[in-house]
Amino acid sequence: MASSSVLTSQEEDFPRWYQDVVAKAELAEGGPVRGTMVIRPYGYSIWEQMQAEIDRRIKAAGVSNAYFPLFIPESYLRREAEHVEGFSPELAVVTHGGGKVLEEPVVVRPTSETIINASFAKWIQSYRDLPLLVNQWANVVRWELRPRLFLRTTEFLWQEGHTAHASEDDARAFALEVLESIYVRFMSEVLAIPVLAGRKTDRERFAGATTTWTTEGMMRDGKALQMGTSHELGQGFARAFGITYLDEGGLEQHVWQTSWGVSTRLMGALVMAHGDDAGLRLPPAIAPVQVVVLVVRSEDGAGDRAAALARELADAGMRVELDARTDTSFGRRVVGWELKGAPVRIEVGPRDLLKGEAQLVRRDLSTKEPVPLDQVAHSARQALDAAQSALYDEALARRQAATSEVTGVEPAIEAATSGFALLPAGLLRSGGETQLNEAGASVRCLVSADSTLPDPSTPPEDLTAVVARAY
Amino acid sequence: MASSSVLTSQEEDFPRWYQDVVAKAELAEGGPVRGTMVIRPYGYSIWEQMQAEIDRRIKAAGVSNAYFPLFIPESYLRREAEHVEGFSPELAVVTHGGGKVLEEPVVVRPTSETIINASFAKWIQSYRDLPLLVNQWANVVRWELRPRLFLRTTEFLWQEGHTAHASEDDARAFALEVLESIYVRFMSEVLAIPVLAGRKTDRERFAGATTTWTTEGMMRDGKALQMGTSHELGQGFARAFGITYLDEGGLEQHVWQTSWGVSTRLMGALVMAHGDDAGLRLPPAIAPVQVVVLVVRSEDGAGDRAAALARELADAGMRVELDARTDTSFGRRVVGWELKGAPVRIEVGPRDLLKGEAQLVRRDLSTKEPVPLDQVAHSARQALDAAQSALYDEALARRQAATSEVTGVEPAIEAATSGFALLPAGLLRSGGETQLNEAGASVRCLVSADSTLPDPSTPPEDLTAVVARAY
Repeated sequence: MASSSVLTSQEEDFPRWYQDVVAKAELAEGGPVRGTMVIRPYGYSIWEQMQAEIDRRIKAAGVSNAYFPLFIPESYLRREAEHVEGFSPELAVVTHGGGKVLEEPVVVRPTSETIINASFAKWIQSYRDLPLLVNQWANVVRWELRPRLFLRTTEFLWQEGHTAHASEDDARAFALEVLESIYVRFMSEVLAIPVLAGRKTDRERFAGATTTWTTEGMMRDGKALQMGTSHELGQGFARAFGITYLDEGGLEQHVWQTSWGVSTRLMGALVMAHGDDAGLRLPPAIAPVQVVVLVVRSEDGAGDRAAALARELADAGMRVELDARTDTSFGRRVVGWELKGAPVRIEVGPRDLLKGEAQLVRRDLSTKEPVPLDQVAHSARQALDAAQSALYDEALARRQAATSEVTGVEPAIEAATSGFALLPAGLLRSGGETQLNEAGASVRCLVSADSTLPDPSTPPEDLTAVVARAY
Repeated sequence: MASSSVLTSQEEDFPRWYQDVVAKAELAEGGPVRGTMVIRPYGYSIWEQMQAEIDRRIKAAGVSNAYFPLFIPESYLRREAEHVEGFSPELAVVTHGGGKVLEEPVVVRPTSETIINASFAKWIQSYRDLPLLVNQWANVVRWELRPRLFLRTTEFLWQEGHTAHASEDDARAFALEVLESIYVRFMSEVLAIPVLAGRKTDRERFAGATTTWTTEGMMRDGKALQMGTSHELGQGFARAFGITYLDEGGLEQHVWQTSWGVSTRLMGALVMAHGDDAGLRLPPAIAPVQVVVLVVRSEDGAGDRAAALARELADAGMRVELDARTDTSFGRRVVGWELKGAPVRIEVGPRDLLKGEAQLVRRDLSTKEPVPLDQVAHSARQALDAAQSALYDEALARRQAATSEVTGVEPAIEAATSGFALLPAGLLRSGGETQLNEAGASVRCLVSADSTLPDPSTPPEDLTAVVARAY
């Protein structure tokens, strides 16, 4: 392949390949303060596509967006004991404001449960105010000592949903609706990444949650990436912040809550689940440029014809870019578009035009075939649909091939060096998770015997542990 | 009016009216850290409409969105002398991160010129890389001692555009394109607020700019609100951050730059430019709920008929909400919708249905008229169009009535107690601006003699100063 020398190969050094592709596809770069990240225009345009798709689904679930402050009084975090213990080591603290030392230092939000629940306590009076379903798109800060672009950064972008319900059942049902109807569907249908949905063990739970539900994807190096979580918070924050309502019988009750989020980490998932040695391979549903129309050489009307084709494709509803930069070599531009992962490339040159054709290249398969000029729009649409399915199928097949059933902690550790291990959770016993962690692996989630989302009432020891190394 | 007792009247106490309406229309409330703000779901839905409209226009101008870090090394700010002097008193400083004292404190961005230009220096090599047009939607922090929701808050949301060009002319042309084609048009066509576009005096310039262009609106108390600014930055940041390019002749040149922004301050403008003693009056183009269909009583099929009407209006492309909360009194719900400023209300009750009618109420005029049921969609669309124009015309007439031409600083101060004064800028002489400031007024901008945007080449003393008290 023309572009094989642009990136370190995945086989040779996967982390280095990741670093290369994030830089060369112009997705992101490090900021001057350790662990911070600049999301470059091309990377951000992918994130904007993700935001639009997720936001539409969140609103369809009846949730309203709002915005809560970046700065949280230190004392708020201390109100929920497990929460503050979980986040204290990662906090950024503002001690000076407006040229003066602050009386009480303020924390830059690592997550917003505390400050949002302070508002919820004011907004909720009666059962009529429930459920209260709120989301915000925001930046959060968790000080990161071993940063990695998109995967672990001191500042990252995310959405965090926060809800309050009248009963534990309502809260659980909503946490699971978000997990399945928003997250799993978005990840599989839009990002073309098959994910395992399950519950976290107590050790891996969110600090302050009673149950954490998660979605875990397999990257092309066999490691797991936690892609989104949905937490049942029980009544812990409700008690800490005094969030009560009068029920229909006039009795005061504490609410039951959930919180849930996905972040710019999904950008890392997209890169590592589909990318190959030539660069990104973007699923058409998320690609900012779905079809690039490339002018091979502009002679003999090729430039005009390409421009007309680009307009035709755009009119047919595809996201199209015309690349007429014929002062840059054709090969170099091809390498660039392969790096950026545009799913379909239409190459238009004088020689093709003589035959009444253009060349259609699918990025996912690296296939090239001639297409009659009057069928380009139709063929491009078909190719986009096919690429969306093919990327999902490939990722699923890859995960299945790299997943093995094991019957002990040692074999699980061995299997986790190259993929996922499915281990009956009862075999973990008391020291199993520690043993896994010491070997660099962990229980990513607990699933049912057929690897689907488990019933909430099933005891953990009756479930199957998905063991893997993780990002 | 039924709702006259809900709010303090504007006549009685305008600032108090503002505070009341922001709270009671559920737009926003103060956060726990002084000066911070919670933007509630209804307020945020208006901001989302603004964002969508502005973002579309920014992209149409060829600008790409990106994201730059929240945290800026303190040393970056010091690189541009005027810039650091302007922002130092307002900074929030992080001194602790991850449980340790930081070697170099980091500043929470008050604006992003410095950190963005550090990236620009890496991205720009050749004239082919120019113009570089980038925007970000972000939160920024400027420590605020006298906070006021939306108008002056310690943290606010905004978009900040940053561009680099090959020549001063290109930079100026782009700064003015943003001002006129994006800001002025958005403010007048969408927010229905007529604005004066002009240039700032040296005293009012942005810290680090060579020229600041501004848009100033008049609020209903006669005070000015700066609604958006577009700065020519010259080559100051280019020199401070080493942003150079090789021109077509192979010579190294510094770029010429612009930056420009609008913020959640626009929410305050929307409230104060149109609101009345019953609450908000939202221009239809920005209203999250354009038409509310109100079930008066649900008997005799009124509930079903109202629901069908709401669907019909939504299918016709209007943003509609059905209010069937008949367990709350009709009057109370009307007061609520007037507070929230929904432009058109369709009231459906059993008595109206017997006559084959519904009642159409325009929020801007407080008129109510019967409409045949089969013409509701048509009439609602007409009413929305009419309300959009009427709000603009009313605001323009109000500004014209409250603007007077004066020929001295003293009369300008006098006129500014109730509106705008137009003063030949030559009459300000050396001490004029100080005298205005001491009296609580200021030069909002310099405009041409006919109050339009002045030609950049006209000397300030040949222009007209718009003098007003300002938010």
